[in-house]
Amino acid sequence: MAIQLWWGSGSPYSWRVMLALEHKRLDYESHLLQFSKQEHQSPQMLAMNPRGRLPVLKDGEYVVFESLAILYYLDLKYPEHPLFGRTPEEAGVIMRVINEFQAYTEADLGRITQAIYTGSFVRDSENITNAIHLAAREARTIELRLSKLDWIVGDAPSAADFVLYPWIMLLLRALNRPEAHELSGRFLPTAANYPALDRWLLRVAALPGYERTYPPHWR
Amino acid sequence: MAIQLWWGSGSPYSWRVMLALEHKRLDYESHLLQFSKQEHQSPQMLAMNPRGRLPVLKDGEYVVFESLAILYYLDLKYPEHPLFGRTPEEAGVIMRVINEFQAYTEADLGRITQAIYTGSFVRDSENITNAIHLAAREARTIELRLSKLDWIVGDAPSAADFVLYPWIMLLLRALNRPEAHELSGRFLPTAANYPALDRWLLRVAALPGYERTYPPHWR
Repeated sequence: MAIQLWWGSGSPYSWRVMLALEHKRLDYESHLLQFSKQEHQSPQMLAMNPRGRLPVLKDGEYVVFESLAILYYLDLKYPEHPLFGRTPEEAGVIMRVINEFQAYTEADLGRITQAIYTGSFVRDSENITNAIHLAAREARTIELRLSKLDWIVGDAPSAADFVLYPWIMLLLRALNRPEAHELSGRFLPTAANYPALDRWLLRVAALPGYERTYPPHWR
Repeated sequence: MAIQLWWGSGSPYSWRVMLALEHKRLDYESHLLQFSKQEHQSPQMLAMNPRGRLPVLKDGEYVVFESLAILYYLDLKYPEHPLFGRTPEEAGVIMRVINEFQAYTEADLGRITQAIYTGSFVRDSENITNAIHLAAREARTIELRLSKLDWIVGDAPSAADFVLYPWIMLLLRALNRPEAHELSGRFLPTAANYPALDRWLLRVAALPGYERTYPPHWR
């Protein structure tokens, strides 16, 4: 098998690559690594990615890492079932939405979920309140897009959907914990607060191959 | 003229797009906006980019923003003089190096330069010392690449060069200020500390059209 993927369960960066591989109907050999056992920092992994981060994809002898670079590579190498649309104009919008998410939202989602899992949001409440506020504003922008379109950009699933979806699932999973109760009112239930986004979540979950991408330790 | 660019002097995100446009020998109408007059937040600009950030590129009726998305769009629309190499494999490495820079270095360079210009690095010295340490480590990785190759990836200038170069120039300009003296020892003089990177800086500055991209308020 040509393509191998090393990934971690619940890593949004891994999940987006798996969604992309399934979207492209590519066969791949899946290597689930345990963060808790530091398997991502083994000599074999560090030889491929000196930062010891996941995911890492190997295609024949070629190694690529950083999730967006993996998506970009896959789309050039295997153009069928495109990840970045069918025209330069569509590609520019998809990449722009991804870059905006990375620049203005991803760090806040990381802060919120980390604060919930470590129980630090009580101590750090001003920072977290601000992150929740910014995340909710970005969610409204996405809600607006999805109230007009089935997918985040254009009329088909794209890299924009696959990049955003895992982070949103991580956030919702964290907000559903009982200790996050006081933070969750801005978002939950999503069916009431973000109905178009809620329908989109179901749409992504119905994509072919989705079940194979779902984090095993979440079941 | 088909392409228009709205940009700010000294914005690394603007500079990288100008380097890319020059590399591709594309004609463009240049609109230099004054941050100090909030020209990037004018109704006309907000209609194109609701975040009011620069650069913004318009090609005919098509608008794109976020610098990496602009580079990606330009490379698909105008494939001659590629920005992302000539093969999927080369493209993956170029995008990976850019993503690594964005994920692990850009924020630190922002913290360092901002601390120097606002004079806050005395108050905030532990944070800044840490940022300097991380930036120096990344600079050594780039130095190693450039000790073997003329350009950051492969044998020609690419988007990786154009993304990294303006930030490095911003850092060096800040470190050259007298008040940054105590921070600058890790980097300056670059010819002694990072000789391959120093030669690469000269190589970029010798590219055709470079003079048109140089921040006017730096002269």
